[in-house]
Amino acid sequence: MAQQTRPARGMRDFLPDDVRRRGFVIGVVEEVYRRYAFEPLETPALENIETLTGKYGEEGNKLIFKVLRRGEHEASGETDLALRYDLTVPLARVVAEHRGRLPKFFKRYQIQPVWRADRPARGRFREFYQCDVDAIGSASPVVEAEMIAAVSEVLQRLGFADFTIQLNHRVLLGALLNGVGIAPALQPTALVAIDKLDKIGRDGVRDDLVARGVATDSAVQVLEAFDDLDTFDRIVAQEEGGAAARQNVAQILALCEATPARGHVVLTPRLARGLSYYTGAIMEASVPDLAGSLGGGGRYDGLIGMFSGEQIPACGFSLGLERILVVMTERNMFPGDLATAAAEVMVTVFDGEVEESLRLANELRAAGLRVDVYPEPDKLGKQFKYAASRGVRFVTVEGGDERARGEVTVKNLLTGEQRTIAREAVARTLAGGGTSA
Amino acid sequence: MAQQTRPARGMRDFLPDDVRRRGFVIGVVEEVYRRYAFEPLETPALENIETLTGKYGEEGNKLIFKVLRRGEHEASGETDLALRYDLTVPLARVVAEHRGRLPKFFKRYQIQPVWRADRPARGRFREFYQCDVDAIGSASPVVEAEMIAAVSEVLQRLGFADFTIQLNHRVLLGALLNGVGIAPALQPTALVAIDKLDKIGRDGVRDDLVARGVATDSAVQVLEAFDDLDTFDRIVAQEEGGAAARQNVAQILALCEATPARGHVVLTPRLARGLSYYTGAIMEASVPDLAGSLGGGGRYDGLIGMFSGEQIPACGFSLGLERILVVMTERNMFPGDLATAAAEVMVTVFDGEVEESLRLANELRAAGLRVDVYPEPDKLGKQFKYAASRGVRFVTVEGGDERARGEVTVKNLLTGEQRTIAREAVARTLAGGGTSA
Repeated sequence: MAQQTRPARGMRDFLPDDVRRRGFVIGVVEEVYRRYAFEPLETPALENIETLTGKYGEEGNKLIFKVLRRGEHEASGETDLALRYDLTVPLARVVAEHRGRLPKFFKRYQIQPVWRADRPARGRFREFYQCDVDAIGSASPVVEAEMIAAVSEVLQRLGFADFTIQLNHRVLLGALLNGVGIAPALQPTALVAIDKLDKIGRDGVRDDLVARGVATDSAVQVLEAFDDLDTFDRIVAQEEGGAAARQNVAQILALCEATPARGHVVLTPRLARGLSYYTGAIMEASVPDLAGSLGGGGRYDGLIGMFSGEQIPACGFSLGLERILVVMTERNMFPGDLATAAAEVMVTVFDGEVEESLRLANELRAAGLRVDVYPEPDKLGKQFKYAASRGVRFVTVEGGDERARGEVTVKNLLTGEQRTIAREAVARTLAGGGTSA
Repeated sequence: MAQQTRPARGMRDFLPDDVRRRGFVIGVVEEVYRRYAFEPLETPALENIETLTGKYGEEGNKLIFKVLRRGEHEASGETDLALRYDLTVPLARVVAEHRGRLPKFFKRYQIQPVWRADRPARGRFREFYQCDVDAIGSASPVVEAEMIAAVSEVLQRLGFADFTIQLNHRVLLGALLNGVGIAPALQPTALVAIDKLDKIGRDGVRDDLVARGVATDSAVQVLEAFDDLDTFDRIVAQEEGGAAARQNVAQILALCEATPARGHVVLTPRLARGLSYYTGAIMEASVPDLAGSLGGGGRYDGLIGMFSGEQIPACGFSLGLERILVVMTERNMFPGDLATAAAEVMVTVFDGEVEESLRLANELRAAGLRVDVYPEPDKLGKQFKYAASRGVRFVTVEGGDERARGEVTVKNLLTGEQRTIAREAVARTLAGGGTSA
């Protein structure tokens, strides 16, 4: 008879304490992003399927949730909509659609869930929130620096002191691989091997590169360049665009020193980032105790043009809410007052006198308190017990005796103290913090 | 080359001003619901398809967006997931799943989008937000009264003075139809006709009832009962359960008088509500200038049992965010300061001195201001013009001359006033509201 009650695979229910923790992080993110003059944007969960396909590479394409056409077409299995896979492609569509209504330099933040039909794993879900900032319309390194500064300030305000922002540049990466003699056709597979450096180490990557068809000499050289910035600089300077990209990175690094990112940003020649639409600087935020990143981003000067036909420079950074929550939970970084009781006061009820209880409750609410009303005329002891189990601090009792005297009894369940207060003074007293001694 | 850039049919992009208006309403809703001791809950956008089917009636079933199975099954057109159609069925699933972790009286609010493949129309979208409150675990009329009070307070705080909460009861409705001689088998179709009263009037409904097979006498009687509460009371009192339901409604009405709902709640015998899962009191909020409702709800004591096997009493109310926004926009009910500029201060930049601009910007941010940095070393006039077009109040200039003197020039774009301030005093002055004369 009873049905399956678990959420769908890779999805989660968020009970009140979960929602409060998520809301706390989102609140900090929003507050900081607003301080940096980013404005909020929201896009639909469902996009036309053509909007998403061809933007995330072949692997990404497979992970898109597709929605069946409705009505007569339903039986055909045809799909016309898809669930948002990230917040960047919808932004590019929005910029192309609303360009005339948006400022020349459009800076937006967007905090919404995305869906990927990935294999669920620890910290990897099929529905998860991204917190994105993007700046559209300028190719200046000020954009990257401001973005890295904003992300750094978010992490600092959440209590992270030990984060690192790794910085690299897509053109530098290509210049390096060219420079050590890895042919362009081999570069994508070489990057897959390089991406495993943290997991399988230098020797592992060297062997993997060779297995993928890279000459041993090239593999050794590229790994050397990762460890030695002088070698790296020497190689990329000789390649086309290498010097300009290196200077761009140097500018971003210098600008970051004037921001809250100071001391947290490092040029990391091996940083590759997965998504195919990046064209310039790429960056990634991490902490030592989390494999993978807290978020990442980069410059993507070609993506909006796929929608508008007109090339518009753009750069963005996406913080992963779920990753941040994992680390904050493990490190116990949430403020203590988040797990607050739903109500500060519970009003008890007596059979036949329930209206008076509601009247009192609404006076207390009008005074700013969070107030629950016990719904059933159970014995007082049972009502008190329930209040205690819910962490409520004050319980009010206004029985026949109290009413006759124009009074209310207030019990502090934390101290056990019980006081009688004139009916008309209850809201003022409790809202003012009284009876809390 | 360029792709389709409009959002999918029936879906909307929310630009910054839209998001701020939506956020304002959601903020008020949350604040009030918390005051009534409701706690936040969030559920996944995607549910297993069996969770949703069979809960909304045949019409509802057709409007559910279905998601294709991934991987090897994709070609088969088979679906296993569906997009959330409302917030009530997921709540019932959550209560059945987490019963042990939830309090005996679980009061939750949930503000999330739902999706229905309805034909889009004015004010009707395929993605829209619902703001739900539900109280689980008690059949007491205190539950309905508290819920109606909370909804009333939300509407009052948003600035609605002229709303009505119509109240009825599913058992009363059945008793009335029985009492006038409409056989149970005819009652569902009769309710469809009755639901058109506002649109087609008394005579229209009478004719429609007769066309649906209801005896003319019965049709006339039921319409009379809608207009005359004494007739209504007399008829339902003679039917099974009628008297108890009538008393339940009377209790709810009496309790509401002790809350912010006072004067807004009316017994409305013709109110039917569409959803099939209601078992007791039903209610609907409306304003004169909106056809349809701002929201509605009712008691559904059987739904959770469909998941848990155990009957658990429950009652809920859902406010429609989009409907509220339509009326508030038409009536111009939003506070003026919502359409605020993204930045209070814009910092200009000079070629080769951008770091100093970022340093100043971050000092201003640390002082609590929303600060933008113009990203490119354009001519000052162009930078000023951009700031003005963005509604920014203060623009700072720290050129070579100013730096040499340890000063910053601050221009108030609203007044045209320009002042020179010592570099170290800028943040303090602007954050303190200075230079605003």
